[in-house]
Amino acid sequence: MTITVNVELGSRSYPIFIGSALLETAGERIAVLRPAARCAIVTDVNVDAAHGDALRKSLSQAGIEHSTIVIPAGEASKSFAMLETVVDAIIGAKLERRDLVIAFGGGVVGDLAGFAASIVRRGMDFVQIPTSLLAQVDSSVGGKTGINTQRGKNLVGAFHQPVMVIADTNVLRTLPAREFRAGYAEVVKYGLINKPEFFDWLEAGREGIFGFGNELGEAVATSCRAKAEVVAADETETGMRALLNLGHTFGHALEGATGYDSARLVHGEGVSIGMTLAHEFSNHMNLCDADSVIRVRDHLRAVGLPVSVSEIPGNPLDAATLMKFIAQDKKVSRGRLTFILTKGLGQSYIADDVSPEKVMSFLEEKTLK
Amino acid sequence: MTITVNVELGSRSYPIFIGSALLETAGERIAVLRPAARCAIVTDVNVDAAHGDALRKSLSQAGIEHSTIVIPAGEASKSFAMLETVVDAIIGAKLERRDLVIAFGGGVVGDLAGFAASIVRRGMDFVQIPTSLLAQVDSSVGGKTGINTQRGKNLVGAFHQPVMVIADTNVLRTLPAREFRAGYAEVVKYGLINKPEFFDWLEAGREGIFGFGNELGEAVATSCRAKAEVVAADETETGMRALLNLGHTFGHALEGATGYDSARLVHGEGVSIGMTLAHEFSNHMNLCDADSVIRVRDHLRAVGLPVSVSEIPGNPLDAATLMKFIAQDKKVSRGRLTFILTKGLGQSYIADDVSPEKVMSFLEEKTLK
Repeated sequence: MTITVNVELGSRSYPIFIGSALLETAGERIAVLRPAARCAIVTDVNVDAAHGDALRKSLSQAGIEHSTIVIPAGEASKSFAMLETVVDAIIGAKLERRDLVIAFGGGVVGDLAGFAASIVRRGMDFVQIPTSLLAQVDSSVGGKTGINTQRGKNLVGAFHQPVMVIADTNVLRTLPAREFRAGYAEVVKYGLINKPEFFDWLEAGREGIFGFGNELGEAVATSCRAKAEVVAADETETGMRALLNLGHTFGHALEGATGYDSARLVHGEGVSIGMTLAHEFSNHMNLCDADSVIRVRDHLRAVGLPVSVSEIPGNPLDAATLMKFIAQDKKVSRGRLTFILTKGLGQSYIADDVSPEKVMSFLEEKTLK
Repeated sequence: MTITVNVELGSRSYPIFIGSALLETAGERIAVLRPAARCAIVTDVNVDAAHGDALRKSLSQAGIEHSTIVIPAGEASKSFAMLETVVDAIIGAKLERRDLVIAFGGGVVGDLAGFAASIVRRGMDFVQIPTSLLAQVDSSVGGKTGINTQRGKNLVGAFHQPVMVIADTNVLRTLPAREFRAGYAEVVKYGLINKPEFFDWLEAGREGIFGFGNELGEAVATSCRAKAEVVAADETETGMRALLNLGHTFGHALEGATGYDSARLVHGEGVSIGMTLAHEFSNHMNLCDADSVIRVRDHLRAVGLPVSVSEIPGNPLDAATLMKFIAQDKKVSRGRLTFILTKGLGQSYIADDVSPEKVMSFLEEKTLK
């Protein structure tokens, strides 16, 4: 069963195909979309080893000329140096304007290859084949691409929409369990933003999802649809798109404070702790009932995700360090902090006048050992 | 006298202010446009030395906080390394989303700073204050930004429109005569594309222009208006915007073949020779009358611009080398060449099926010593 979610963005609209065993037919879909186009596959060493041949076989069978650019796995590849390498390789592959870049991998590959595509010849089209749960439910929608700098995560990038996304849930079977869980945090997020009934469904259906049942494709599709709704309403993140940052201001600060060391914390784990903190902070500000906080925390914990700062291994994190990273976050406006807070399960909203002092005192409490 | 040209691009529309002594009031205009915004000025050492204080004084008088990022002058600054430096400096200046980057300089600064602005935080607004004639009549309209790579010029970049352009013709008085002339080649181009009456006016009025009379501001304004018309009709260069490349396919090849060595050839000189070649090639193909070729060549020569390959100092260029660069040019589509040809003065059109063999034999004739 293949589910199609259309991301409606006017002339930049595109389909997301979700299902199992879609990698095998990727070549056909691309040939239909863009006859006679050549492709440069950008992927990382792990994805290349596990699934590269399957994709190349599919492209060849569809008569598509292709070359492969392999980058090291891991967040460190989201750098200026690797951007230059990939850009140079795409140009070197002699792709013309109507040809395609294929971003084949998780979030790092998607962000880097999408950004590279956006700046080669001032914008080349790209197809995204996300191979992690996080990438399927998050970066497959919204067109955010980018790299990190010494000064922070994703501070450099572009909005660049793919022309097609192919999300094959079979590919997720080779993901490490920890990475699958981390991606699941973003699935939960869509329920917590504004779909309480989806959160209920997840509470009931999590075994099917984690057992690679049909529920997994449905959860991916619902997540993509939820994100697409928000993005369609606000493509460049000036307004309600900020809701997608639920848990992310805290989460980014945790990632920054742990030096993006994936041994200690991966993005989805940061989001899991961040969403829990956002609910706890909302409760602390008398905005959100305690029951909702407990349901969120229990569900995330039940699937094996961390929900508190103290669960992060290594040196304890202190509130001042976290505040420093929060202040650097790109969602700062004229000295007041913008946070996504919630009035209860699935009732998140954008609060753009949060007092740094209140966040600080809350964090001090949360980082006490 | 200040002339305002509005570039109509829907939500990305912006004004170009053209006149003398506009630098002194730049701060006021920026304060009106974006109250309380802070600015990061990106400029080169020469412009900073000649006009930096005047701009900073104007900003300070208008109560605008600012910092300055100074890059080396010259085409070599359009590199990945310098892009990273400028991006890092903009982020380091702690600009927030509503703040502004000011691109203060010629084409190199505009292309680099505009591109940097486009990718910091996935897109920051920028104001352009072009200080060369070329930048005032060319890069001030169209939103093309970018850098060079080993493989070619402007192969990496973004379409990113400024929010305002301030073109002060007084600033042009400090330009070297050679650079002023080179910029003038692009002014002539607008006449040759589709405004024969503007070309007539230039033939009659060139002394006023080169004497910094009122004709200069008028010529800049007419050029900006001409380019704005084309760009508004075709923002991302899929169709008629290609007309702006009149003389540029040959010109870029000449620049490439001379290694972008400005001692031998600057961009506008390449365009001057390129436009002459485009008319000669059109005549060679029996498309354009000989009288038009002569008028174009005579006018360019009269202002001191080169009009033939043999005028380029240094080792003679050969046809095969030029063809190699033409084939790498981004306006290649499926093996046929796209050239801007002309049916006579001011009657340029896009020819997308030019035979590489005919270009080669024409170039062989033109590069014979």
